[in-house]
Amino acid sequence: MANRKIDEEQLDCLAVGAGILGTGGGGNPYTGKLRVQELLRQGKTIEVIPLEALADDDLVVSVGGIGAPVVGIEKVQRGDECLQAFRAVEKETGKRISALIPAEIGGANSMEPMITAAQAGIPVVDADGMGRAFPEIQMMTFFIYGHEPQPAAIADEKGNVVVFRKVKDMYWLERFARTIALDMGAAAGFADPPMRGDFIKRYAIPDTVTQAIDIGRCVRRANEENRNALDAFQAEAGGKLQFRGKIIDVRRELKGGFAVGRVRLENLDDPSDKAEIDIQNENLILRRHGKVMVCVPDLIIVLDLESGEPITTEVLRYGMRVAVMALPCHPLMRTEVALKVVGPKAFGYSEVEYQPLAN
Amino acid sequence: MANRKIDEEQLDCLAVGAGILGTGGGGNPYTGKLRVQELLRQGKTIEVIPLEALADDDLVVSVGGIGAPVVGIEKVQRGDECLQAFRAVEKETGKRISALIPAEIGGANSMEPMITAAQAGIPVVDADGMGRAFPEIQMMTFFIYGHEPQPAAIADEKGNVVVFRKVKDMYWLERFARTIALDMGAAAGFADPPMRGDFIKRYAIPDTVTQAIDIGRCVRRANEENRNALDAFQAEAGGKLQFRGKIIDVRRELKGGFAVGRVRLENLDDPSDKAEIDIQNENLILRRHGKVMVCVPDLIIVLDLESGEPITTEVLRYGMRVAVMALPCHPLMRTEVALKVVGPKAFGYSEVEYQPLAN
Repeated sequence: MANRKIDEEQLDCLAVGAGILGTGGGGNPYTGKLRVQELLRQGKTIEVIPLEALADDDLVVSVGGIGAPVVGIEKVQRGDECLQAFRAVEKETGKRISALIPAEIGGANSMEPMITAAQAGIPVVDADGMGRAFPEIQMMTFFIYGHEPQPAAIADEKGNVVVFRKVKDMYWLERFARTIALDMGAAAGFADPPMRGDFIKRYAIPDTVTQAIDIGRCVRRANEENRNALDAFQAEAGGKLQFRGKIIDVRRELKGGFAVGRVRLENLDDPSDKAEIDIQNENLILRRHGKVMVCVPDLIIVLDLESGEPITTEVLRYGMRVAVMALPCHPLMRTEVALKVVGPKAFGYSEVEYQPLAN
Repeated sequence: MANRKIDEEQLDCLAVGAGILGTGGGGNPYTGKLRVQELLRQGKTIEVIPLEALADDDLVVSVGGIGAPVVGIEKVQRGDECLQAFRAVEKETGKRISALIPAEIGGANSMEPMITAAQAGIPVVDADGMGRAFPEIQMMTFFIYGHEPQPAAIADEKGNVVVFRKVKDMYWLERFARTIALDMGAAAGFADPPMRGDFIKRYAIPDTVTQAIDIGRCVRRANEENRNALDAFQAEAGGKLQFRGKIIDVRRELKGGFAVGRVRLENLDDPSDKAEIDIQNENLILRRHGKVMVCVPDLIIVLDLESGEPITTEVLRYGMRVAVMALPCHPLMRTEVALKVVGPKAFGYSEVEYQPLAN
């Protein structure tokens, strides 16, 4: 694949596609999109390069927002939070960082590396650490496959910068970062430890910026051309329809900073045909008549039945007409070591065995 | 004053005197004393130097334990927490640090700089940032008088090191440090931002290591020689007796990580003569018949009526026979700018006007 420069059309597609890959979580990419748009209109360039373009000893840093996505929408950013965190990690390393990589392609964090790339004048790698959205740092493939958890940094809109210089393991990094993010007002910029090109080429989920843009474009074009967006998502972007129906119940509560709940759905044509989705920020498990149909780390995607636009878990409500689609996760997320971190048991479902969604 | 090398006799005195200057808080110096003792027996040297010995451009760092003193007693330390935090600050500064200074002379934090000094091979300045114990970082004279709040660092027994590289103000540093300390298990080592010798000479509370040793020695000698320790504290170390009596009520609760409560006392000879002490980790306000007798930042000290040993607020209980003594705080703590941070109003007593205890 070749390098690509992000333009406004691609940016609009990325926002929709990243929302879909967010599987209900990761926050809405909309406000981030507006900031990228502004940077593009100021003449900044955002170059996306394929994994193969990295030299083995290039250093790459993943950046993203950390905190509660809901807060991120309302709390005004300074706009350089991730850049400041990135600069702190770069200084800590004492070496030049060649490129950025999205921590997670799903949701609002698709936009953060674009913003930082425009500000720092370095490219973004066409790959990410999740291939979707997940709630915690250790759920990135980089850490699942043994990357060291230090140094990392967090920065806020007030100018505070905290560096995690030595961290025993990923769980400690997640813990420290989460509490500082809460102190900072539940929305901050985060930069992960630098990784070498050879490591990234092996363990990043490849081509996901392109995938997000392609999915978004397919949905947007279908709408523009008055074709059915859900059909287009299935035909052109691999979406697998699981259920169509009306939301008949939403239970949701905040537990430890996460939105935890269950959504019940009823088939529009057959009221006896019911399904339910368990959520923890993201959509985790889809059951039909009590049987698990799809579960993490495979992607469970709730889309508006008419427009095919993604619906994040925090705005799900009674009466919405939705389609539940699924996408298989990348093989890197299906290994034994990965399932320990991102499989159903890692989210507390001790009784659920992961059954891979067919490709 | 001349340099002094800390020996075991001085160490025993320091532990008692620091407990007294802890005004009920700051934790018990006992376990820290045992660690210093061990280092001395290994042949390590701890040199205490007077403020005047500092060159104007010498850099000095204050270190101390941060967290809940009660936890510090039970949680096993690795022993180099403050050293690791100190090393992180030194690295961040990029310059050699010449000496350590206690963040607070009161309580367990009297011992931490001694331990770090023995480990790092640099002296301890005979001064501190409080002249007593206080619960929060911004209550040190260094920060009251405008020292910048960065860089600082915190380290734990697991090897985690977090650096506060840019911090908007002292209140943000206190907030970040407090939450990371809680994550670390409510006991960690902390190193404050490096200060220049000329700044320290102007704004540190002077000679407080010597003061603590002298107070401790006076109480210990009196006990050894079967003289009354309380009389000795008054005659030889400036203690001002406020009340003698029996504890008839203790109310105590944990609020936001602090032990908050009220202790009621009854005169042993006259049951109608009553006093009460408000506590927030430390003894804050002594009232007699509802009238404020002594309040922060002056020192309110509760001692065992027989031995003159200090009693920390967490072990106060019904039936104890105690003497309530007072010591005037240093003039640096009595200025308008200081009282905003350490006066009664700073602790939520909007109705109490600070009346200086006579010297």
